[in-house]
Amino acid sequence: MSDALRVELPAHRLEKLLSVVYTTADECVLTFGREGLSTRMADPATVMMVSTSLDAEAFTTLGDGQFPAGVNVEALIDHLGFAESDDDLAVLEYDEESRKVDLRVGERYDTKMALIDPDAIRAEPDIPDLEDSLVNEVVVPGRQLSNAIKAADLQSDHVAIKADLDAEHPVRLYAKGDTDATRYKFTDEDVIRADVQESAYSVLSVPYLKEMKAEIPADAEVRIRFGHEFPVKFDYEFADGHGDVLQMIAPRITDDDY
Amino acid sequence: MSDALRVELPAHRLEKLLSVVYTTADECVLTFGREGLSTRMADPATVMMVSTSLDAEAFTTLGDGQFPAGVNVEALIDHLGFAESDDDLAVLEYDEESRKVDLRVGERYDTKMALIDPDAIRAEPDIPDLEDSLVNEVVVPGRQLSNAIKAADLQSDHVAIKADLDAEHPVRLYAKGDTDATRYKFTDEDVIRADVQESAYSVLSVPYLKEMKAEIPADAEVRIRFGHEFPVKFDYEFADGHGDVLQMIAPRITDDDY
Amino acid sequence: MSDALRVELPAHRLEKLLSVVYTTADECVLTFGREGLSTRMADPATVMMVSTSLDAEAFTTLGDGQFPAGVNVEALIDHLGFAESDDDLAVLEYDEESRKVDLRVGERYDTKMALIDPDAIRAEPDIPDLEDSLVNEVVVPGRQLSNAIKAADLQSDHVAIKADLDAEHPVRLYAKGDTDATRYKFTDEDVIRADVQESAYSVLSVPYLKEMKAEIPADAEVRIRFGHEFPVKFDYEFADGHGDVLQMIAPRITDDDY
Repeated sequence: MSDALRVELPAHRLEKLLSVVYTTADECVLTFGREGLSTRMADPATVMMVSTSLDAEAFTTLGDGQFPAGVNVEALIDHLGFAESDDDLAVLEYDEESRKVDLRVGERYDTKMALIDPDAIRAEPDIPDLEDSLVNEVVVPGRQLSNAIKAADLQSDHVAIKADLDAEHPVRLYAKGDTDATRYKFTDEDVIRADVQESAYSVLSVPYLKEMKAEIPADAEVRIRFGHEFPVKFDYEFADGHGDVLQMIAPRITDDDY
Repeated sequence: MSDALRVELPAHRLEKLLSVVYTTADECVLTFGREGLSTRMADPATVMMVSTSLDAEAFTTLGDGQFPAGVNVEALIDHLGFAESDDDLAVLEYDEESRKVDLRVGERYDTKMALIDPDAIRAEPDIPDLEDSLVNEVVVPGRQLSNAIKAADLQSDHVAIKADLDAEHPVRLYAKGDTDATRYKFTDEDVIRADVQESAYSVLSVPYLKEMKAEIPADAEVRIRFGHEFPVKFDYEFADGHGDVLQMIAPRITDDDY
Repeated sequence: MSDALRVELPAHRLEKLLSVVYTTADECVLTFGREGLSTRMADPATVMMVSTSLDAEAFTTLGDGQFPAGVNVEALIDHLGFAESDDDLAVLEYDEESRKVDLRVGERYDTKMALIDPDAIRAEPDIPDLEDSLVNEVVVPGRQLSNAIKAADLQSDHVAIKADLDAEHPVRLYAKGDTDATRYKFTDEDVIRADVQESAYSVLSVPYLKEMKAEIPADAEVRIRFGHEFPVKFDYEFADGHGDVLQMIAPRITDDDY
């Protein structure tokens, strides 16, 4: 605990961060401090983890204190929805006595929110490094990644993200049904950067990918890092480069060949 | 009963009047006469009353007769929906023998509608005057009133419309939940006119406000008149000033302080 | 059966053809050949029949072979939905050994689809000629026919398409409820061509008309041919004139007068 905290930032930036968290958890601990704001959550089955932050420059005012605020994610998103333009600020002030936060959104809306005890919220997960195992890296537009996930969803509830060094377009999503199979290849036009070292694949659950997809902006540059049967990491920026999202999805174990 | 009646007016004006009635009642009696058209209904619990009318100038043709037409509100809205432009007229002709109305909408659509016996429809309520008790009056854009109702709805199923003479922005909606509380203040930018005499509040049911909100145009100038624990009156114009809507909502009895 | 088949055409043309089929059947046999592509289906109750085709000029490549492909209509529509522009091609290649079709849509998406044995699909119906009985013919915009069907749907689950030689606007849809009745007349402005020989009507089921309506483009010129208590034929073009749709709906038997 610390001195009363007062932070100000464009409301839509905080709303975006929370929407990403909401793909994975209903409650989270927002850790405000000198370096900005960060939070990290896993879903109950710990298949998907999300880590997201806004740096100090994403804020118009950022106090000296530090404060972990346990919040209901959906309720806070709803409050922030009362911003009427991208300029409307969210102002959060912590009141130590009542353990409540005064939240102002724009000129007209304010609310007094009771915080959730951080100890009552699912603990923040550790996100493994895996640098050596995720040998393949590709950066594609959010739009194409979303289309690829949609394509997989038509065919199956699981899909391989796959690199085939022998193919013209080496990186694709590949989904198999009982009789049919669908591929979505990232073309040269799609690939913003690539460093593909090995033919390899990891099989992911489509429902988790769909949750993630819902929050990826069409024009985001999404970096995908994957190896052979390892967790897959997706990351991209938001808030004009002052925010970042990292989502990691654990692979499914499968006997199938892809 | 009277001579056959034939009235003509832009279909969308009659449709708007009926949409307002439909917030409160499924059936109503439309009273056509030399002065135009009016109707008045309360919901079954008589918590919300609506009175709405179109003056003679809202019509392109208005007969000499007078006729109370009992109608199913939703069915008549559906018929009027076949107007293809704002110029398309609705022409109603009463046939005394069959007790039916011939309704033409635009050039292509016509229907013969059996009327409902006015005696079978919930009686028109009296709307009390209350001039002396509704000491506060404020006029705000429909858009801001709608946002304020949305804000209340997030927090609770009841909300106070409140004047606080000591505050910078004296008029606001204020909703309290078990632990949280939300205010939506009308700023100087919002307030088109105001005559606020006393600090006072009346607590209203949010579901009724939401019904009302659905029909308030974003750019309407809505006059709100309220006192301390009295019914609240909302009124605004439509149909280029030839129509008006008055909605009155009875207050909830509460021990809470607001 | 024949040599491997490879056809190419703009994906949206094939998608449109299938959407029309889907008003009537879940599976169909697409017959590809030198003259293009055609298919013909009836609904299970054989009340509505649809025949639709794309001529050779609708294709960018059309092989020499001939091949009846049994397909799941909805699944194929879903695949074709991955076309990202009107220029994106669908490329179908038949693999005789696996009895599968390789379908490519645009640059990124491909799928291997197992075909359905044509013998397992409801047989193609014969569509009767009826030239002599369908004495009335009128051509109207898709938009107005759709509105007329919507009007009927408000009133009843069946509607007469009716010609009245004595009326100013002789062709209309006419629907009767228990107490009310609704007409939608095609005005001079609507009628693109007409050859109305006899006062006559045929009563059709509204649900079938609504299925048909969902696929009629607003700007299509729909020809309607009908007689007295005979099936009614509707036809129009698509794919820049290279595709055509014919839908026939059997009349309901009724004692009512229309």
